[in-house]
Amino acid sequence: MIKGGKVVNADQTVNADVYCEDGKILAIGTELEVPAGTEVIDASGQYVMPGGIDPHTHMQLPFMGTVASEDFYTGTAAGLAGGTTTIIDFVIPDPQQPLMDAYQTWREWASRSVSDYSFHVAVTWWDESVYQDMGRLVNEEGVNSFKHFMAYKNAIMAEDETLVNSFNRCLELGAMPTVHAENGELVYHLQRKLLTMGITGPEAHPLSRPTEVEGEAANRAIRIAQSLGVPLYLVHVSCKEAVDEIARARHEGQRVYGEVLAGHLELDDSVYRHEDWNFAAAHVMSPPFRPQGHQQVLWKALQGGTLQTTATDHCCFCADQKAFGKDDFSKIPNGTAGVEDRMMVLWDAGVNSGRLSVNEFVKVTSTNAAQIFNIYPRKGCIAVGADADMVIWDPAKSHTISATTHHQNVDFNIFEGRTVTGAPSHTISQGNLVYKDGELRVQEGAGKYIKRPAFPSIYDAVKKYNDMMKPTAVKRG
Amino acid sequence: MIKGGKVVNADQTVNADVYCEDGKILAIGTELEVPAGTEVIDASGQYVMPGGIDPHTHMQLPFMGTVASEDFYTGTAAGLAGGTTTIIDFVIPDPQQPLMDAYQTWREWASRSVSDYSFHVAVTWWDESVYQDMGRLVNEEGVNSFKHFMAYKNAIMAEDETLVNSFNRCLELGAMPTVHAENGELVYHLQRKLLTMGITGPEAHPLSRPTEVEGEAANRAIRIAQSLGVPLYLVHVSCKEAVDEIARARHEGQRVYGEVLAGHLELDDSVYRHEDWNFAAAHVMSPPFRPQGHQQVLWKALQGGTLQTTATDHCCFCADQKAFGKDDFSKIPNGTAGVEDRMMVLWDAGVNSGRLSVNEFVKVTSTNAAQIFNIYPRKGCIAVGADADMVIWDPAKSHTISATTHHQNVDFNIFEGRTVTGAPSHTISQGNLVYKDGELRVQEGAGKYIKRPAFPSIYDAVKKYNDMMKPTAVKRG
Amino acid sequence: MIKGGKVVNADQTVNADVYCEDGKILAIGTELEVPAGTEVIDASGQYVMPGGIDPHTHMQLPFMGTVASEDFYTGTAAGLAGGTTTIIDFVIPDPQQPLMDAYQTWREWASRSVSDYSFHVAVTWWDESVYQDMGRLVNEEGVNSFKHFMAYKNAIMAEDETLVNSFNRCLELGAMPTVHAENGELVYHLQRKLLTMGITGPEAHPLSRPTEVEGEAANRAIRIAQSLGVPLYLVHVSCKEAVDEIARARHEGQRVYGEVLAGHLELDDSVYRHEDWNFAAAHVMSPPFRPQGHQQVLWKALQGGTLQTTATDHCCFCADQKAFGKDDFSKIPNGTAGVEDRMMVLWDAGVNSGRLSVNEFVKVTSTNAAQIFNIYPRKGCIAVGADADMVIWDPAKSHTISATTHHQNVDFNIFEGRTVTGAPSHTISQGNLVYKDGELRVQEGAGKYIKRPAFPSIYDAVKKYNDMMKPTAVKRG
Amino acid sequence: MIKGGKVVNADQTVNADVYCEDGKILAIGTELEVPAGTEVIDASGQYVMPGGIDPHTHMQLPFMGTVASEDFYTGTAAGLAGGTTTIIDFVIPDPQQPLMDAYQTWREWASRSVSDYSFHVAVTWWDESVYQDMGRLVNEEGVNSFKHFMAYKNAIMAEDETLVNSFNRCLELGAMPTVHAENGELVYHLQRKLLTMGITGPEAHPLSRPTEVEGEAANRAIRIAQSLGVPLYLVHVSCKEAVDEIARARHEGQRVYGEVLAGHLELDDSVYRHEDWNFAAAHVMSPPFRPQGHQQVLWKALQGGTLQTTATDHCCFCADQKAFGKDDFSKIPNGTAGVEDRMMVLWDAGVNSGRLSVNEFVKVTSTNAAQIFNIYPRKGCIAVGADADMVIWDPAKSHTISATTHHQNVDFNIFEGRTVTGAPSHTISQGNLVYKDGELRVQEGAGKYIKRPAFPSIYDAVKKYNDMMKPTAVKRG
Repeated sequence: MIKGGKVVNADQTVNADVYCEDGKILAIGTELEVPAGTEVIDASGQYVMPGGIDPHTHMQLPFMGTVASEDFYTGTAAGLAGGTTTIIDFVIPDPQQPLMDAYQTWREWASRSVSDYSFHVAVTWWDESVYQDMGRLVNEEGVNSFKHFMAYKNAIMAEDETLVNSFNRCLELGAMPTVHAENGELVYHLQRKLLTMGITGPEAHPLSRPTEVEGEAANRAIRIAQSLGVPLYLVHVSCKEAVDEIARARHEGQRVYGEVLAGHLELDDSVYRHEDWNFAAAHVMSPPFRPQGHQQVLWKALQGGTLQTTATDHCCFCADQKAFGKDDFSKIPNGTAGVEDRMMVLWDAGVNSGRLSVNEFVKVTSTNAAQIFNIYPRKGCIAVGADADMVIWDPAKSHTISATTHHQNVDFNIFEGRTVTGAPSHTISQGNLVYKDGELRVQEGAGKYIKRPAFPSIYDAVKKYNDMMKPTAVKRG
Repeated sequence: MIKGGKVVNADQTVNADVYCEDGKILAIGTELEVPAGTEVIDASGQYVMPGGIDPHTHMQLPFMGTVASEDFYTGTAAGLAGGTTTIIDFVIPDPQQPLMDAYQTWREWASRSVSDYSFHVAVTWWDESVYQDMGRLVNEEGVNSFKHFMAYKNAIMAEDETLVNSFNRCLELGAMPTVHAENGELVYHLQRKLLTMGITGPEAHPLSRPTEVEGEAANRAIRIAQSLGVPLYLVHVSCKEAVDEIARARHEGQRVYGEVLAGHLELDDSVYRHEDWNFAAAHVMSPPFRPQGHQQVLWKALQGGTLQTTATDHCCFCADQKAFGKDDFSKIPNGTAGVEDRMMVLWDAGVNSGRLSVNEFVKVTSTNAAQIFNIYPRKGCIAVGADADMVIWDPAKSHTISATTHHQNVDFNIFEGRTVTGAPSHTISQGNLVYKDGELRVQEGAGKYIKRPAFPSIYDAVKKYNDMMKPTAVKRG
Repeated sequence: MIKGGKVVNADQTVNADVYCEDGKILAIGTELEVPAGTEVIDASGQYVMPGGIDPHTHMQLPFMGTVASEDFYTGTAAGLAGGTTTIIDFVIPDPQQPLMDAYQTWREWASRSVSDYSFHVAVTWWDESVYQDMGRLVNEEGVNSFKHFMAYKNAIMAEDETLVNSFNRCLELGAMPTVHAENGELVYHLQRKLLTMGITGPEAHPLSRPTEVEGEAANRAIRIAQSLGVPLYLVHVSCKEAVDEIARARHEGQRVYGEVLAGHLELDDSVYRHEDWNFAAAHVMSPPFRPQGHQQVLWKALQGGTLQTTATDHCCFCADQKAFGKDDFSKIPNGTAGVEDRMMVLWDAGVNSGRLSVNEFVKVTSTNAAQIFNIYPRKGCIAVGADADMVIWDPAKSHTISATTHHQNVDFNIFEGRTVTGAPSHTISQGNLVYKDGELRVQEGAGKYIKRPAFPSIYDAVKKYNDMMKPTAVKRG
Repeated sequence: MIKGGKVVNADQTVNADVYCEDGKILAIGTELEVPAGTEVIDASGQYVMPGGIDPHTHMQLPFMGTVASEDFYTGTAAGLAGGTTTIIDFVIPDPQQPLMDAYQTWREWASRSVSDYSFHVAVTWWDESVYQDMGRLVNEEGVNSFKHFMAYKNAIMAEDETLVNSFNRCLELGAMPTVHAENGELVYHLQRKLLTMGITGPEAHPLSRPTEVEGEAANRAIRIAQSLGVPLYLVHVSCKEAVDEIARARHEGQRVYGEVLAGHLELDDSVYRHEDWNFAAAHVMSPPFRPQGHQQVLWKALQGGTLQTTATDHCCFCADQKAFGKDDFSKIPNGTAGVEDRMMVLWDAGVNSGRLSVNEFVKVTSTNAAQIFNIYPRKGCIAVGADADMVIWDPAKSHTISATTHHQNVDFNIFEGRTVTGAPSHTISQGNLVYKDGELRVQEGAGKYIKRPAFPSIYDAVKKYNDMMKPTAVKRG
């Protein structure tokens, strides 16, 4: 029982109490009768919001010759400390590896999670078995989204042929294709060129992945989706070029969605020219942080509805791992943390500044992700019958972010030293109080795998529209 | 009690029954216990949706030397027959007329309404009394939106000075400024020029108001709003030029909203060159129907979220009234009907084609209007505690629109002869069944005036943002 | 000696006589003294303009299992009949064929030309020998432009890797990369899909190559060029999507150029649904003619300077050749004629309508092409010292275009029956009067191969700009 | 006789000598025979370019209660020192003052000029006499352009009614309307608001004229021009918002031109927050210098052809004049200098960086202005018969700009301390060597008034296009 708070959903705010039982929300109202002995949390002066959904994390990812330092246990715990109660992570098969095999591996890893989780599955290659496995994943395993890397040539990059086939398969299955939009061929070429020029440090990282490289891939993915009549979701949109493509497509009625990371909203590329190699390398992720100006564009796109979701691409590598690229920036493991920090940074930079209303904050931290990935209203809203995943948010609480105090299992924090106003006082997962004022009360393996059904509601319209546009033959004599 | 339908809201669709009492929704669920004797409507195979909100009507408007043929009694009844349970009409003071006087006049006229209604108030001139009356309207009368005509030179046109002052006042009061965006100076010039050239028929009407005239005014209003930090709502957006301005502004994070009329979505400007003068004149409204291509742009903007609401600008003049402009197109009373037809046309052209999902249909026919004009969740959703204004929608029902059968008090219908699939089987207003399969059961004066409080939730963000942007002086020695 | 005409260049129009000797223009003025016996052409009331340059033709091209019916002899003659005195054709090596071999073959074929000609060379594959041959072509053979087909999968399509390498090589050499922008992977997929659906006629052709397919490729090529710092020229831009990409790039300062075909400006895709298969098939070319609306966009882009050149992609196949695709539209040889018609159609649709001034007409029919491909001021202007390639244009002359009367060696004309106002009265090539009022006076082999030097003037700026943007390493302790 | 230089025009560069006689260019070539005793200037290693045209200066302007410190004598001399050989200044009648009266006054003032000059005339009010005087100015006085201030409410601001009438009159006369695009109503409102807030220093100047205020007016003027079918020229375009409007209009085929000032290209608005009031006030001009980012947009627009001309808005006020606004920023006389610095700053920032080629430099410093304002090819190119106004440009010469050394009659230079590479070694005006390596050899009154004929060549197309679009009446029974 949460008493006295302002209950915030994407569409409205009301003063009400919330009563949970058996992991579900059972009642919302002002004079609820509850069983004796019910634990009561006082939320006076605070906001009661749906727990955050981070639709983009990579716990214990094997990548670039090492493994991300954060596992599903520590990572989901850190999420709860920051008010995030659900993550959607990625199953990433190697080329030629059967999708189902990789899926089983990741399910096993994830079983230690302390909060709910779900999976996107990457399509990194193509043959008939991939086609079949996609069907099985959707129909039997509750996977309704597939990821495509347009970068990482000679590794997991999907060629246009794979994109076309996989997007088409998504359409048949009612699943959402997603893309990491960077032109891998260009990145490869620019990496080689920079190394040849003797520019080997982290400052070469953003130079090898300029914004036009992302703009190109975003456009390509959107055009492919358009010509096939399939919706599309772009992960970690980081620059004006990509935002403009999404805006154009949406303006023309195409169903395209975009995600933005807290880091891309708040940091710029000056970090890569820092004199301390470790500091610079710790920021290496793809797409990189961008030149000044892009952050403003991303914020405005989030305000204006061109972008719908916020995430972190949480993928942790410690200094000793980053050091693999000491002599060659292209070998620095790509990734930064943030699952714990996202909501606080967004509140501080978004709500305190008036860029977002509190309802919009809920929209971009949970509701939109839940709707796009079809776990709404189970997740992403506070309503009778929904999962009791909530965060009680104290708008007055001050908190200084630091690697020395965060719960994330990594030795660096890209928001180091930032003092935010507004932070979780309590987090509730599955109806349990799992975080209270700095203290975690989590249980390994308590998190449940969340199946996400195919054919989210937008597919009603997509199918009808494609039918309307279906071509016909001309009858000739 | 409505049994067995699919209850559709903007965010989701559920199979549930809905129980109403005393004009409110009391329960929603699958196994509701209801008092014996409760009237039960079978909604199997049908959608139960929030009643439509038409945010733009002009009942019995005195205009261009005559009075609109539809009064509040007949007009609201026609609305109910089409599933629209709330209208927001306009109080339009003459220049120099005190706003409160005009407001009282319209309240008096509207008291005969059979469904709920509310008012925007037009600001057609400026002095200190207007400033004061705006405050009284907001704080005492529940008016939270003010309209500005940028067209109709020498009549109700607001000059830039009035726009600036009134928008600024809206910001103080937490009200929403709205504009009819056409450059009245250009319209005036082009009207004179066309008459001089001897082009006097209705075909001159669109020529005197080309799309750039609307694009200009849309941009001007948006820029004024931007420089003052105030949100803005554009009524009857009819063309690519204006849509593009709204899209740009939203893309840059500005809080700008746009409304589109069913007529502008579906008709083009060929009607004005019809050989029958009466037919052509019956379509005279401002902005006019647009050249082919614009309709597609409007639809895509509605799909993509650049436009949020749909309306009709319902303003009826019969053939004998239209005839006032027999020799001079600029004297043809401007206006067309549609309050009854809007939802059916939108369903047929929007949902059946896959342009809109059913949830999006609800969004653009009621939810968004309710949120923007701050009567949500009382109106615009089906939720416990909301007003029991609902429409039961039969997606299989076929209906042919015609002036000979419609309930609107006018002798012409711009959708004449169109057969739509999908129409209301029942309409419920204030918990009463007021329309069933062609039969109206309305009661004069049953409609209630709906007060709309100031400071809708977006103002939280607007105020914070304006504070953040507040300029400061430089301290010099 | 041409007397009494208005001499039109891109920058101005003057009343003057023009005197030529030895294939060059020797004097321009009002009271020229010329040797006795000089042939005098009376150009009173007419325009004397630089002869047209068609920068995109395919004479006797081996393509899709057949060979274009127009050879260099007939094709250049037809060009002269229409006022075009220079063509730039394409050398197209098969994948794995050495570029120099193909180049020699085409040079041989072209030796029969009756007017001057030059060559772009296509890069259809990549290895070290291609890299070397590009250098030889530029440095020894006067080729300063290379073409890349982004379509025609499994044939001459260039993958991204080839594009990146070849564009980069162009930059080193001071040559201009050009692209045929269509995503070949999507075209292939859509072709297969349409055939599977049983849509096998020419109506499937535009459906397999929708405008987004061109928009995608245009964007990709532009983004690749941007990231490498190389200029770019897009051939046969046919739709809004591609135009918008070029406009955006130019607006951001990128050196991108676009060419438009007379056919794309004037025809729409309704031709493909014609009930006569032969008629429909005769229009099959890629990109296809586009839906209504795109023509307007192309015209405006040409007016506004987003597009700079006009061409024809002249590539003729007769009805019996087109019949190869009787049962499978994807086998219909792609190509249409026009080298003779281009200037007349452009004058009629462009100058007579006020879309282009006569100076702008010269710009888009010759000057811009000459500047971009670096044969200015030898070609593309009337100046002392320039080649004496001129057309005397009679603005009052009426001419009806027809396959029965044209000089092109093909049995169809896409402008069949169109009566234009404005046509050449005389054409002068290399100082010789080669066409006069319907009569050709050409001599096989009289045409000369025109070498085009590398590093056109824009490269001064390109090189400096790339230097300015050159990245640097961070020095760390 | 200028020997051994590279002669640069907008379309090409050639190595040639130039021979002048009687103020005209008589011959251009490599082995010219000239009369004995001809003065020879050695231009080896240098560029010989058309003298600059500054189409926007205000010599000795009476403005805001004072008079600009630079008169026509000193101002044109300073221009010559910087390579500018022609200025186009402005006649600005007070409201109600007859245009012809003001014109005569300015002609009188200008008679002391040392280089050629011409005049735009401002239309600051409207009645039948203005209509008549515009005709006289065009037909008798060689004025072919009229200026409209959309800012400066309660002074010289033109209302929409004046804009519409005057633009229309320009169309009849074949003259070019030009606008200073800022919404004067908003500026007025924001000035009052800032003063009320106690922000009275120069830092309030940019806050009172944010970029949206210019974007609005640019759009309005463009839309008015569009609906009337008249070309348009926007002076001192300073921000992304206005650039985007011009780009859009041009992309849609409208004949719109834009001018940019050297100051707006190179400075940002940080100058207004300088701790020294005098320094900050010295930068007060309208539109103000803009936030970082806009400079980049302007450069790219100049490169891409969205903007065509460069100017200075040279209007000098000394520190004691600026001090009139000590307590109220809105009273600081608006204006900065630059007629002497423009070409050097543009070369240094434009050509040295590779943003512009040398041909493009000529285009934007003289040719385009000459063509738009119809004094081409008399001015703006080096050609036989053209005026002998030339600058010999030493690309290696280094020069440090400073108020202590400049020839401008003002105590401040906005480019103070900037060292540029590339500067005039000699300037030739009317065939006379008037400037050589720092030394001026000018003669008061030597400058001639240049008549500019109406109907520049673009009007051929404009008139035809308007005819094509002329509306027609429908004939009804």
